[in-house]
Amino acid sequence: MKRRDFLKKAAGGGLLAASAVTAAPAIAAPRKRFNWKLVTTWPPNFPIFMEGVQRFADDIEKMSRRRFRISVFAGGELIPAMQTFDAVSQGTVQMGHGAAYYWAGKVPAAQFFTAVPFGMNAQGMNAWLYNGGGLNLWRDVYRPFNIVPFPMGNTGVQMGGWFRKEINSIADLKGLKMRIPGLGGKVMAKAGANPVLLAGGEIYTALERGTIDATEWVGPYHDQRLGLYRAAKNYYYPGWHEPGPTLELSVNSKAWAELPEEYQLMVENAAAAANTWMLSEFEAKNLQALQSLKQQHKVNVLEFPPDVIRELRRLTAEVLEDEAKKDRIFREVYQAYRSFNSSNTAWNEISEAAYANALTV
Amino acid sequence: MKRRDFLKKAAGGGLLAASAVTAAPAIAAPRKRFNWKLVTTWPPNFPIFMEGVQRFADDIEKMSRRRFRISVFAGGELIPAMQTFDAVSQGTVQMGHGAAYYWAGKVPAAQFFTAVPFGMNAQGMNAWLYNGGGLNLWRDVYRPFNIVPFPMGNTGVQMGGWFRKEINSIADLKGLKMRIPGLGGKVMAKAGANPVLLAGGEIYTALERGTIDATEWVGPYHDQRLGLYRAAKNYYYPGWHEPGPTLELSVNSKAWAELPEEYQLMVENAAAAANTWMLSEFEAKNLQALQSLKQQHKVNVLEFPPDVIRELRRLTAEVLEDEAKKDRIFREVYQAYRSFNSSNTAWNEISEAAYANALTV
Repeated sequence: MKRRDFLKKAAGGGLLAASAVTAAPAIAAPRKRFNWKLVTTWPPNFPIFMEGVQRFADDIEKMSRRRFRISVFAGGELIPAMQTFDAVSQGTVQMGHGAAYYWAGKVPAAQFFTAVPFGMNAQGMNAWLYNGGGLNLWRDVYRPFNIVPFPMGNTGVQMGGWFRKEINSIADLKGLKMRIPGLGGKVMAKAGANPVLLAGGEIYTALERGTIDATEWVGPYHDQRLGLYRAAKNYYYPGWHEPGPTLELSVNSKAWAELPEEYQLMVENAAAAANTWMLSEFEAKNLQALQSLKQQHKVNVLEFPPDVIRELRRLTAEVLEDEAKKDRIFREVYQAYRSFNSSNTAWNEISEAAYANALTV
Repeated sequence: MKRRDFLKKAAGGGLLAASAVTAAPAIAAPRKRFNWKLVTTWPPNFPIFMEGVQRFADDIEKMSRRRFRISVFAGGELIPAMQTFDAVSQGTVQMGHGAAYYWAGKVPAAQFFTAVPFGMNAQGMNAWLYNGGGLNLWRDVYRPFNIVPFPMGNTGVQMGGWFRKEINSIADLKGLKMRIPGLGGKVMAKAGANPVLLAGGEIYTALERGTIDATEWVGPYHDQRLGLYRAAKNYYYPGWHEPGPTLELSVNSKAWAELPEEYQLMVENAAAAANTWMLSEFEAKNLQALQSLKQQHKVNVLEFPPDVIRELRRLTAEVLEDEAKKDRIFREVYQAYRSFNSSNTAWNEISEAAYANALTV
């Protein structure tokens, strides 16, 4: 049980943690109280994301009978959203929630723990992280930053994005100004597009005014709330660039070591429960929103042409090789990811993909 | 938050639970101790299944500092495997673990909470159960039996089974003696096969001696351990009859109501964590086993022909209609299941299925 080793090892330094490993006394002494702060990269009231984090905090508070309390802050409430990683790393706060690929500038390899273009979907990511060595690797990568990461949430396969004009060939991507961050953006640049970075609040206006020609955001539920269907009518699938982004809970490693074992296990269990709850909520809400986008808002829901997909897939392999040359840790994680992904794809082809096919054949 | 309502409502009768809802005192009094028994439908040391259940029990014991202990029993150790439902219902034990479709004789509608031929996969089942009203329905169906159910584990898409002869057309199913239980068995009977019921321990010998011509079991990992590749060489996919069976934790409702809120939440969170852990472990182990079956044991891994799949799908609809006519509760759950599944399939086609296609197109 690698998880147990990790818990013991990570907790080993803390006095309270050490005592929790020994046999419990007949009537246990009351535990030290913990009042923690959790900062996130999300806007206030951002549905599903913030709901999932709040459920996690509420459940831990109740499981611990209010001895372990976690106050949740939206991005900007306590510190700017994009300083979440640093704040947890430095111990300014004990916990953060966001997505690992936001820290690509600092830790390029972090991108593998969120999503990679043409990489693993949510089910594959969970299998890799929990049961294929991925989470241990993630912890190795974050150790120099004094952060212990946990998977906590997943959006499922995202949509490919909103386009003012139809995409009928790879030539239609040339010169296209598209809001698309990360590795997906690098792939689009190789295809001749101009990837643009814009915060969530700026996207609608930019697309509506034609400052950009296209944008990706999340999925039908969040995209509908942002009103993107009013600014562009062509809604492409699938989200080749983000096929199942894992969200992350980050915990300062010194704070983690000071937690008694029972609270560590509450964090671990509540994070895993929130992981599945968020994905399930995305699935349930996306399917409702998709129907309303098609029926009420007359959106054209279109599949990327096979030629375009093939070319983006080819360019993705190039981008990953480029990045691997630049950074040793990226290279190592890429190798482990690719190896698991390759077996996972083989299994998927005869399980999930073959089953999906059996429903329509 | 329907979950919160449920917890309060279900716990309302219990004195301890009621006190836990009020504000915690500065130093909380030590809690009453609970020593529970959990019986399962699984053989001793049955990998993944029994491991997941044991992790669940261990985590709760540690989270509660040994005040809430759950002893786990394999099928037959305390009571016969197939009496799990009755034992939990009558309060002989507080908890059980198995699969809802085992109780189809008593509760035909229970089958929807495990798996339905050509129905939802693991991700769809989680979305329906946690976030689409499915779990509330499941609790309604089990209420007359004094059982509170929780999803806890999933095998993912199973394999279609081991066949001594190749299946090239629906005619090849005529007269075929196949070990296949439940609704899948009823569909096979409509296709002209002879479905047979056999316990796990009897399958290998029956197949090896030709007493049966085919069998389904679980997936590559468990099937390899049973040695089925030595008795038949044709291994068909996908598992149209069990596309993502949900496993169940059942709790006696009186015992549940007596649990303080913090222990209820430990059960809920640990069950959800085990739900994902088991599926992830299946995924990770199945892909390894599949490679070894193909490479070392020269198994023919074959896809069911489209004609066969189409006919089985058509017959499945007939079987479900037949069952719906016989039982009012089956009919009601079928309606809810079908409605969610229909939207879920539409969303899947442009998310997961389209993405799987983008990897190979």
